[in-house]
Amino acid sequence: MSATLIDGKAIAAETRAEVARDVEAFTARTGHRPGLATVLVGEDPASAIYVGGKQKASREVGIEPFDHRLPADAPAVEVEALLERLNADDAVSGILCQLPVPGHLDGVALTGMIDPDKDVDGLTPLSAGRLALGLPGLRPCTPAGVMVLLERAGVDLRGAGAVVVGRSNLFGKPMAQLLLGADATVTTAHSRTRDLPGVCRTADVLIVAVGRDRMVKADWVKPGAVVIDVGMNRSEDGLHGDVAFDEVSEVASAITPVPGGVGPMTIAMLLRNTLAAAELQIARRVPA
Amino acid sequence: MSATLIDGKAIAAETRAEVARDVEAFTARTGHRPGLATVLVGEDPASAIYVGGKQKASREVGIEPFDHRLPADAPAVEVEALLERLNADDAVSGILCQLPVPGHLDGVALTGMIDPDKDVDGLTPLSAGRLALGLPGLRPCTPAGVMVLLERAGVDLRGAGAVVVGRSNLFGKPMAQLLLGADATVTTAHSRTRDLPGVCRTADVLIVAVGRDRMVKADWVKPGAVVIDVGMNRSEDGLHGDVAFDEVSEVASAITPVPGGVGPMTIAMLLRNTLAAAELQIARRVPA
Repeated sequence: MSATLIDGKAIAAETRAEVARDVEAFTARTGHRPGLATVLVGEDPASAIYVGGKQKASREVGIEPFDHRLPADAPAVEVEALLERLNADDAVSGILCQLPVPGHLDGVALTGMIDPDKDVDGLTPLSAGRLALGLPGLRPCTPAGVMVLLERAGVDLRGAGAVVVGRSNLFGKPMAQLLLGADATVTTAHSRTRDLPGVCRTADVLIVAVGRDRMVKADWVKPGAVVIDVGMNRSEDGLHGDVAFDEVSEVASAITPVPGGVGPMTIAMLLRNTLAAAELQIARRVPA
Repeated sequence: MSATLIDGKAIAAETRAEVARDVEAFTARTGHRPGLATVLVGEDPASAIYVGGKQKASREVGIEPFDHRLPADAPAVEVEALLERLNADDAVSGILCQLPVPGHLDGVALTGMIDPDKDVDGLTPLSAGRLALGLPGLRPCTPAGVMVLLERAGVDLRGAGAVVVGRSNLFGKPMAQLLLGADATVTTAHSRTRDLPGVCRTADVLIVAVGRDRMVKADWVKPGAVVIDVGMNRSEDGLHGDVAFDEVSEVASAITPVPGGVGPMTIAMLLRNTLAAAELQIARRVPA
């Protein structure tokens, strides 16, 4: 392979170490320790593992974790009441409602209840609007993590042609907004795009988040492009991204592996967002 | 010229006639007449003309206009108190705070105070977030008007390559979101874009909003493309758009003129938004 590997695992570890230092400084300065509340409804094993990972990662950087679990049949009013309590609780800097929630609940409506200054997932309508308008606010973790990877890899986004494949609310749309804010020329492509390989070939920076095992081939990539693979596809021959890594790494100038690329950044950015949320709330409590 | 002219003046008149019919039906059904409150701070003559035009247009379609004017030195608390009163007033379906406001006021903060269900300009952070996430809500008038023009011109956006030149919060960014929602492959270009002519040449649908007199030349346009010109530039030889109309209309398949293209759609969409806001508020008042 000729491409430089963008080592997400190492960059995420650096980010977490930075957050740990910044949490200590924040706590020394304010006398207040940032706290992250996770809300898990039901017993989905994968969700329980994710939540456990976030709790553990919080503890490691000095953020106090609050672990709230409700039974799978918890009525909406009970989840809402919990979110309201957490919104009002000064010890809770950030709130994360683990999705998906059981079918009788409305995940979008529940997420929308979270105080936008505690919205560490950056997924409420108000957080999305702040991002769209370029206002300060909490940004979704995975695209924010990609921005850190690009920065650490020394990619100059100003005027670069960036193509984002995928347009989810969770990743593709906020990713496009962040790239636009960094002065890239941004194209959002998706399942309806005509000539997807041709569109991808125009990219100086190609970011793929579609959930299709090794879809992007070497001849989809402009020689020298930077390729960020957000996919995570499990198949009989192992875990793979949306990019055919072996062949694309012969064409790209830099590329993220799967696993060990974008994945590790998500929790690192969640921790950074929790600290940012704690800062927002301190600013809110002290009259200007 | 070979391009079909997209007659914004005629389409706007049709839209206003439709809104007038729908307002009558709404009033007959609910016993409630939609109302539009405009807030003008200061004496800027252009702003006064815009506000007057919106008042007159409201009256013509059966929307009750409420005309609020404050002196140029009105303190922020006075404007805020007025907006709060209008938010609470059931007779007011839509609120429009005419921008720009005098320098001692914060236009973004004032706009942000407007109840999102009364935000007929579609410019509050929550409205921007609803658009970004594909949730129901009020959309900014000018890009929404462009969507109507494209629809009336029979343009099939699904899978089409759309290029938006300009990335303002008022137009470019929401325009890109609306096109993405209609399944176009969307590129946002701007002042930092390398090879802007080359990017424009990839467009099946080219939408330009940069405020540069006749910047887009014939050789920037793919033969057969649809060209929407959002510019309004006054020069010694008259009013012109951002597109060199005479030469581009020889290449494009359809094009909007300036004046008489996008411009007339903005007020028409403001009226439609006011009716939509009235519907939202009726839905809110009647317990589900």
